[in-house]
Amino acid sequence: MSNDYFYGSSGCTCAVWNSHSTHGRGEHTTNMQEHPTRSLSNALLCREYEEDPAPLKTFLSGSSLGNGGPQLSFIPTAGAPAKASSPPPRIWQVFLEKERNPKSPGVVTHSSGNHGQAVAYAAKCAGLPCSVVVPKGTPKVKCDAIVNYGAELVFCEPSPAARKEVCAQIAEATGKAIIHPFDNYNVMAGQGTIALELLEEVPDLDAILVPISGGGMTSGIAVATHGLNPNCRVFAVEPVGKDLQRSLESKERLWPNPNRFLDTIADSIRIQQVGDLTFPILCDYAESKVFSVTDDQMIEGMRFIFERMKLVVEAASGAAVYAAMNSLEDVTPPPRKVGVILCGGNVDLDHLPWIDRKTSY
Amino acid sequence: MSNDYFYGSSGCTCAVWNSHSTHGRGEHTTNMQEHPTRSLSNALLCREYEEDPAPLKTFLSGSSLGNGGPQLSFIPTAGAPAKASSPPPRIWQVFLEKERNPKSPGVVTHSSGNHGQAVAYAAKCAGLPCSVVVPKGTPKVKCDAIVNYGAELVFCEPSPAARKEVCAQIAEATGKAIIHPFDNYNVMAGQGTIALELLEEVPDLDAILVPISGGGMTSGIAVATHGLNPNCRVFAVEPVGKDLQRSLESKERLWPNPNRFLDTIADSIRIQQVGDLTFPILCDYAESKVFSVTDDQMIEGMRFIFERMKLVVEAASGAAVYAAMNSLEDVTPPPRKVGVILCGGNVDLDHLPWIDRKTSY
Repeated sequence: MSNDYFYGSSGCTCAVWNSHSTHGRGEHTTNMQEHPTRSLSNALLCREYEEDPAPLKTFLSGSSLGNGGPQLSFIPTAGAPAKASSPPPRIWQVFLEKERNPKSPGVVTHSSGNHGQAVAYAAKCAGLPCSVVVPKGTPKVKCDAIVNYGAELVFCEPSPAARKEVCAQIAEATGKAIIHPFDNYNVMAGQGTIALELLEEVPDLDAILVPISGGGMTSGIAVATHGLNPNCRVFAVEPVGKDLQRSLESKERLWPNPNRFLDTIADSIRIQQVGDLTFPILCDYAESKVFSVTDDQMIEGMRFIFERMKLVVEAASGAAVYAAMNSLEDVTPPPRKVGVILCGGNVDLDHLPWIDRKTSY
Repeated sequence: MSNDYFYGSSGCTCAVWNSHSTHGRGEHTTNMQEHPTRSLSNALLCREYEEDPAPLKTFLSGSSLGNGGPQLSFIPTAGAPAKASSPPPRIWQVFLEKERNPKSPGVVTHSSGNHGQAVAYAAKCAGLPCSVVVPKGTPKVKCDAIVNYGAELVFCEPSPAARKEVCAQIAEATGKAIIHPFDNYNVMAGQGTIALELLEEVPDLDAILVPISGGGMTSGIAVATHGLNPNCRVFAVEPVGKDLQRSLESKERLWPNPNRFLDTIADSIRIQQVGDLTFPILCDYAESKVFSVTDDQMIEGMRFIFERMKLVVEAASGAAVYAAMNSLEDVTPPPRKVGVILCGGNVDLDHLPWIDRKTSY
């Protein structure tokens, strides 16, 4: 494995993990779907669409945690505070659709979380019609966010199969292009920009913890991280019951079918199985050790960030924070400088879990 | 009024509003209490105590607000996210106490809010004992924060007079130095560093909105702002009932005595009268126009920041946000580039007002 370095126009120095995939920027505007291993260079391209990359600089050291523990660095994803005024990286896939087909009837996706909001926003920026399929019962705050970006909201039954079917039906009936929330290499590449920003700020991280659902964000981050700093390990953090570690260890999809939603308060990471395209990338680039977190533990992590960092984050981020603060000794060697991905796009302010549950942490 | 410029060691270019008070740094380590007009240079000195000034870069433009309104820039004060790892500027006054009297028996203050926490933290850093007087009924989260910094917590009756008396008794009995939460020029100077940071990032602001209680933060910011950018107006934002504008317009203290606590959810800005030392500074350097905000309006502003900026802010900051978004047309000319001071040190996560009131915004 050889590393070649080049400079992106965004000013960052990046390592491409496979010298054979190192190309000039001009070659990357088409056919990226076939080349998962190009995700890092794609991530660099994605950056060009970001008007004003937000600063990170949100650190919490071991001493702030009240112990001699690891130094944690947090990075907000699109939807989090500092990002308020810059378009999310996922916008890139939508712009590509417009570039390829200027008369495109638009895009459609299925996601009640950040992806749905990001695609709706991206479509608005690109001037394309957009439909977002969400399961019945999705909190009003999320529906409002999607509608406020001008997208059409379509409800489906709350199952992984139903949302996929409804999405396909819309694509069939309208000609809209499906932008899959995770099984799409360009979406993964967009997510990989999170690792670019994080490692630009803290190049010597030795681990990054990512809450995982379909695996798009974890894949993108794992690929980009592997290219930038091969010594930095990427760990997925899951809700109890996802059982990802067993499949990663055996490099086989050991989940029972059909795919299902997990019973967890972290509604942005409810899907049990990771994607068909993300799974092999996770097997290659993420650690097989996976941190499993209960609802109560997520709440503890979530509330800690509200209280100490004054950031509004969702339960999935709470899971990663909990793991970073409590479970790192489970791995060898224990990482000492750890990046944690935070997101607050899915917080329902009328139903904060520690209030709803009348628990006290 | 002439402006002289000099460079501080923190790398920022600053204007001192009164050429007669322009001095080298070495002259400022003593006797500052007598010189309110030196607050800006004091603010620069305070900066030297900050290990790692936090980045600001949190903007919300008119388009994000869904209208053609002003561009808002937000700055978190000590206690807000990016500040988690750096000592608050108020630490300076505590260090001065230690410098003047290495065998000092410690410090005492009265404040249930950020000042109490900041002094407790500063005393811990300086290695001085600390007592903080808070009114009975202060939320547990605030008491915990003070105790966690190692300070002694002393409860008093919930009135401005009571907390002052108890504080004086402790000072008398123990010899501890009183660090008044607002009627102290060095504390004001510490607060003035907020304006330094804000105007370093956005030098051409034409207004700054500050939630006001005793007036320490508003005074410090008004003086520093006047020195840095005399075209930038500083407006106080108050809970309805404080009636500050009438006193500022007449330059006379028109409040009925005794001083009292206002009936507002913004428990960090409950005191009706501003201080004896802050009042003349406010008359000179702040705008006499004051924005008065109701509890419901504060909640609206607070929730907006939670939802859109993903920041945990308290009701007092909600007041400033509400005024920035709704009341700027009341002044002539209406400011177009506005800084807003945010703080989240006083948020009780178990009692968020929109949930407690079962209102929906």
